[in-house]
Amino acid sequence: MKNIRIKIEYDGTNYFGWQVQKDRVTVQGTLEEAIASLTKEKIKLIGCSRTDTGVHAKEYVANFFTSSTVPSDKFREALNSRLPKDIVILESKEVSENFHARYNSKGKKYIYTIYNRKQPCAIYRNYMYSFSRELQLDKMEHACKYIIGTHDFTAFKTKGSSVKSSVRNINELYINKKENIIKIAVSADGFLYNMVRIIVGTLLDVGTGKIEPEYVKKIIDSKDRTKAGKVVPACGLCLEEVFY
Amino acid sequence: MKNIRIKIEYDGTNYFGWQVQKDRVTVQGTLEEAIASLTKEKIKLIGCSRTDTGVHAKEYVANFFTSSTVPSDKFREALNSRLPKDIVILESKEVSENFHARYNSKGKKYIYTIYNRKQPCAIYRNYMYSFSRELQLDKMEHACKYIIGTHDFTAFKTKGSSVKSSVRNINELYINKKENIIKIAVSADGFLYNMVRIIVGTLLDVGTGKIEPEYVKKIIDSKDRTKAGKVVPACGLCLEEVFY
Repeated sequence: MKNIRIKIEYDGTNYFGWQVQKDRVTVQGTLEEAIASLTKEKIKLIGCSRTDTGVHAKEYVANFFTSSTVPSDKFREALNSRLPKDIVILESKEVSENFHARYNSKGKKYIYTIYNRKQPCAIYRNYMYSFSRELQLDKMEHACKYIIGTHDFTAFKTKGSSVKSSVRNINELYINKKENIIKIAVSADGFLYNMVRIIVGTLLDVGTGKIEPEYVKKIIDSKDRTKAGKVVPACGLCLEEVFY
Repeated sequence: MKNIRIKIEYDGTNYFGWQVQKDRVTVQGTLEEAIASLTKEKIKLIGCSRTDTGVHAKEYVANFFTSSTVPSDKFREALNSRLPKDIVILESKEVSENFHARYNSKGKKYIYTIYNRKQPCAIYRNYMYSFSRELQLDKMEHACKYIIGTHDFTAFKTKGSSVKSSVRNINELYINKKENIIKIAVSADGFLYNMVRIIVGTLLDVGTGKIEPEYVKKIIDSKDRTKAGKVVPACGLCLEEVFY
């Protein structure tokens, strides 16, 4: 048995997220079918993370065990010819049998993209959140300082996930603007459910002046979900990189 | 009667181009229906240019005459609420009765976008042409020098259009690369049928080493369509700006 690691780019628009669900088209399910059609084996693909419906990935990492004689680096092309155009294998490689895409992950980087002008965007609309109100970027950048670091992020978590601890370390959070496009990048050792989208929603509350940057510290301390911003739409979110 | 000028952004992926065709969904047809539903008049929309199936526009200009009492600047919002998400009105404004979106246009700027890496792109695939072979940008830039200026562009025209003259003046043609994304921008007083896409196809022939930059001058002089490159896919093309 070989352990094959694949890196995947996908457009999540037409999928019910990563994870296999009954009667729903998911990225994992689509990939498992393509691998099965190639190897004639029933494959269980191990993904680095569950992404939600509509969320994209530029370099998602997954692994699977196979007895196939297909050379490890040839899975890329062989799978791409079996996959729809919105899922592309960037690389396939044999790795040690101990490698596990989820357990071995040391962290991830996400980028959330906002299109900021009065009119919504037509082009790229599946990859950006159209936000019409003016934003004070300096205030949003100020607020980032309170979020960076190790905190209990209970206030930034949608309930329903059964993780033991809500403490995470955000080691990078920055904002970048070019013309109408605002990108918010965030790296952490791990993320709670909807955490990036709630951080962005909270930063937008700061940017529009609804709350002051300093209040973000109070939101973290409160551990109260109702104080943080709303969950911004999935389309703007993209998993950028996974760290091992 | 008021003459209303609108600026439009559209994602051409799901349309059979700009111009109204029987039994086909087009951008012009979709806009005319939205205007008719608002004004209760039968409207003829005058567009600045015919774009092909799959081609996009960031700032397309059109105009129409109406007796509607809707304030000129309110057409924007009123139409956006009636349009699908892939067509967005950016601005609506009353202009002089002499304004004609096509006849008054002094020129246009297009940008063609190439995603250049071994694997095709999944995200943004409807807005870029995935090109896997390595490209020598310096040679492509050299070739641009022969294309800039006033020439008879018969070699860069798909037959079928019945224009009198094939002489056009290209006043700007440049290439810009950032990571895997190559943008080719071209401005001219006017364009022949498929002219931008054939120029890009020819520049790709130069970039891959199929032809030398100097040969582009010979292609122009030959007026022979078979010597120029192929028509690259529509998805990479976007009408960027119209000059008046």
